[in-house]
Amino acid sequence: MEKKRIIVIGGSAAGPKAASRARRLDEHAEITMIQKAPDLSMASCGYPYYVGGFFDDRNQLLTSPAGIVRDSKFFWNAKRIKALVNTEVTKIDRKNKSVEYKDLVTGEAASLAYDKLIIATGATPRKPPVPGVDLKGVTTLQSMADADFLRQVGDEGEVQKAVVIGGGLIGIETCEALHLSGIEVTLVEMLPQLLAFLDKGMARIVEKYVQTKVNLILQNGVSEFLGENGKLKAVKLLDGSEIACDIAVVATGVRPNSALAKEAGLTIGEFGAIEVNTYMQTSDPDIYAIGDCIEIPNLISGKKVHAPFGDLANLQGRVAGTNVINGNSAQFPGTIQSGICKVFDYGVGSTGLSEQNAARHGFDNIETVLNASPDKPGFMGAKLLITKLVVDKNTNRILGAQVLGPGDVGKQVATWAMAIKGKLTVEDMINADLPYAPPFSLAIDHSIATAHIMQNKLNRLFVGITAEQLKEKLDKKDPMFLLDARNPNEYEAQKLGIGETLIPLGQLRNRLAELPAAKNTEIITWCKISLRGYEAARVIMASGYKNVKVLEGGLNAWPF
Amino acid sequence: MEKKRIIVIGGSAAGPKAASRARRLDEHAEITMIQKAPDLSMASCGYPYYVGGFFDDRNQLLTSPAGIVRDSKFFWNAKRIKALVNTEVTKIDRKNKSVEYKDLVTGEAASLAYDKLIIATGATPRKPPVPGVDLKGVTTLQSMADADFLRQVGDEGEVQKAVVIGGGLIGIETCEALHLSGIEVTLVEMLPQLLAFLDKGMARIVEKYVQTKVNLILQNGVSEFLGENGKLKAVKLLDGSEIACDIAVVATGVRPNSALAKEAGLTIGEFGAIEVNTYMQTSDPDIYAIGDCIEIPNLISGKKVHAPFGDLANLQGRVAGTNVINGNSAQFPGTIQSGICKVFDYGVGSTGLSEQNAARHGFDNIETVLNASPDKPGFMGAKLLITKLVVDKNTNRILGAQVLGPGDVGKQVATWAMAIKGKLTVEDMINADLPYAPPFSLAIDHSIATAHIMQNKLNRLFVGITAEQLKEKLDKKDPMFLLDARNPNEYEAQKLGIGETLIPLGQLRNRLAELPAAKNTEIITWCKISLRGYEAARVIMASGYKNVKVLEGGLNAWPF
Repeated sequence: MEKKRIIVIGGSAAGPKAASRARRLDEHAEITMIQKAPDLSMASCGYPYYVGGFFDDRNQLLTSPAGIVRDSKFFWNAKRIKALVNTEVTKIDRKNKSVEYKDLVTGEAASLAYDKLIIATGATPRKPPVPGVDLKGVTTLQSMADADFLRQVGDEGEVQKAVVIGGGLIGIETCEALHLSGIEVTLVEMLPQLLAFLDKGMARIVEKYVQTKVNLILQNGVSEFLGENGKLKAVKLLDGSEIACDIAVVATGVRPNSALAKEAGLTIGEFGAIEVNTYMQTSDPDIYAIGDCIEIPNLISGKKVHAPFGDLANLQGRVAGTNVINGNSAQFPGTIQSGICKVFDYGVGSTGLSEQNAARHGFDNIETVLNASPDKPGFMGAKLLITKLVVDKNTNRILGAQVLGPGDVGKQVATWAMAIKGKLTVEDMINADLPYAPPFSLAIDHSIATAHIMQNKLNRLFVGITAEQLKEKLDKKDPMFLLDARNPNEYEAQKLGIGETLIPLGQLRNRLAELPAAKNTEIITWCKISLRGYEAARVIMASGYKNVKVLEGGLNAWPF
Repeated sequence: MEKKRIIVIGGSAAGPKAASRARRLDEHAEITMIQKAPDLSMASCGYPYYVGGFFDDRNQLLTSPAGIVRDSKFFWNAKRIKALVNTEVTKIDRKNKSVEYKDLVTGEAASLAYDKLIIATGATPRKPPVPGVDLKGVTTLQSMADADFLRQVGDEGEVQKAVVIGGGLIGIETCEALHLSGIEVTLVEMLPQLLAFLDKGMARIVEKYVQTKVNLILQNGVSEFLGENGKLKAVKLLDGSEIACDIAVVATGVRPNSALAKEAGLTIGEFGAIEVNTYMQTSDPDIYAIGDCIEIPNLISGKKVHAPFGDLANLQGRVAGTNVINGNSAQFPGTIQSGICKVFDYGVGSTGLSEQNAARHGFDNIETVLNASPDKPGFMGAKLLITKLVVDKNTNRILGAQVLGPGDVGKQVATWAMAIKGKLTVEDMINADLPYAPPFSLAIDHSIATAHIMQNKLNRLFVGITAEQLKEKLDKKDPMFLLDARNPNEYEAQKLGIGETLIPLGQLRNRLAELPAAKNTEIITWCKISLRGYEAARVIMASGYKNVKVLEGGLNAWPF
């Protein structure tokens, strides 16, 4: 039997996974991996933590768990994969089933034939097309070289000020890294909010927190990088303002590297990324594509998305690695776009669709709810979690959840991701059976409590109002009766101070006379997390008031 | 309209939840809660952590998150629930729809009529019926009084030695609490393993760890508590040995408190607990029962179980509280018996069926697999997780997962619990979309990697052998070739030393000649986590060996 010839273009994340999987399925295949960068299998998601000093040994980004650097020698010895580095594929010749490539060091060119080809060319950071973008000091955080540069900046301690451009995942991770290096950071984001995967109200909470660490500028962008002698001195923004700085990190998203595929005539999708089926097969049956260079279906809406995440790249790699050896037997169905980000001491994560994304994906009858409550009992060192749950009201199916706060966000997002994977409804989550003990969660886990609140809202046991909605009403000076249902000592420690009346829940039934006489008065209740706010609303509704609302998430979710 | 009269018997966990839910649905109902103990809404799962000094303020076990003690006054003021404490219900008169009760302080008796009754009488610790069980120093950890006693023991610092009887959740939590109080602890368990919800091999790993903290005695029980002047001096075991000690804590499980229901003629199930339907309704339509006094279906097998967990009690309370007001509209379908326990610095949890429970519940074609690998990248401070996954081979449906180790066990168990809730198969988990960033998980989450390993095993890409199976073969001196595929420096640092040959994976293809010539030789491979062990097995199988096995979990899961 002929040996199968497999070529993998790309050696960062998806590529090595596909090549390794192929090898494990076929010891005799000839597997060649062609990598443009000098390194292989870089843990690129770890760059911000290396820059931020979470660890000092650069090699940890490049080594196997056993401490061996994953270089060409490693791939040959441990996996019999021929890995060419500093080598660029210049052309895919589909007719002759071969690729042409060039050694970027020697300039030598060559070609190699394949039976099956896997494209894992990744994505390239977008850079704003403005003057000065090539000044020394303007960088991205995408390559090992970038990480080395920014780490050195931190170690040398000479840089005082930095500007980070882009308030997405990488931008925020970069802010934390630079902040930990003792640098004063200004974060500039073009959109009116950070972290576009969050709904605006949730983003507002993150912004309030981030502002305690960095200077935050929203709805503004870079018009020019200003320099002296080729070195960055300041960033000029679209509004004309200038921010003096020694370095600027651009993190304004990535562009799929699909040029090679496009030139070869493979079908490119609406995001400019390579189109594949669930087998990870391109429009050419002998060519597969995986990782940041492809677009894939969102599993909830069926619509295509560009989702450049390291975890998905690995899963796709396993599928392509299987199929090039065994024929199309493994499938990657798509993504629910689960993501998470460390934002200083907060976790911020999301899975499924946000409210704004649900609308964009065609869901027109949705309900949302906020739960801001602890992850564990107070006596076990509880930390706050804030969850926004998005549900399709037609089916009660869970569409998405956003979670943030200092609490155990990772577990919450994983729980919701699995709920969405299982196509569960609110009713399914009501009696979810999660592991409980005080060191790990509340008796009713935060996620289940969120489902309870959602059910109560769907059943009209209460009507909710979000912080932004209330703020808008306040700004418009709408007539309302505002009721804080907490105890006086809690009130003294922290209050909204927006004209509210303090009536502790325990006194409410005896003080109903203090409410406005007109039963159609708009009454808004809250407490710290709005459980007592909810109970107060129930009491007030039972005495005939027709327009009672609960401030969702209570004080805990008030971002103003 | 007449006011609904609701009586709830029991004021610890399920009872208050049901009463509070009923109140939120009906402001005008007359709700009475009758509690035998002096306290209400005790956070009883927190007792071990109070005893162990995780926190010092006893009131935190009794207060609302806002710091108000949940006493009768609180329940009246905040919830208009009349809560009688130190009051025992002596009879349920179903004909007249009333209960008779007695004030345990004054001895006064009275009766009260109900429209709907909720029984939440809980469970009582089993005590071994042996001499000396009433000696001073023999206790349980079930009541606030028990917690006070054991906390005082720790604070006074006079007790040197303690014996804990029972190696279940509470027993092990008690061990940790006493150990943290500076007491030398001996743990005695009647079964051949700790934590019966774990399979034996997983329990063995816990036992190895627990032995670094306490003296562990398995397969032995108490024959007598020995005392002097009414005070405990030693525990005598069934094998005749004696363990000197000042205190003994009995944690040998609980018995449902169903006598009252039984006397009233309600149907009692096979576990001696009250039978209910999914509405939490007993055989009398006007009487509901919830919490530790009932038995409920296991959702995977459909078989009834007694599952006395605080989280389920709360969920059931919500359902009963809804149904007594709105009629049967809410349901609690059953449990997958998710549980978790802090075992010193390990988390130990389980959801669904273990291998031994799957067999007991009628599953006769199952596959299991072990994954022992980190929860995060090494550079982010990875900690070990060991997972055993149990799958129905007929359907590839996930039946259960056990997880333990110093890593993030809570998230793993929650993930699997939701997978089981969604009735997912191995294939579904293969491409689960979980939130990834280095501070939170590996790019391929430990749970997903476990599914990958399971799929590889189901597809016969490797044959596994467990540590116990290998140990058995070693004891029988079966002829085998044992191959450690790690690097020399790893081998020097830690090795099994059971006659293995060290051939690093990177050298294996060049050293195949060192393997036994006979292709039917049984060859067993491993590394630290058995990924390289698996890769080595693939190489060896490809060169014609017919009987190659991978040691599941590698060195990480070797408990001997």
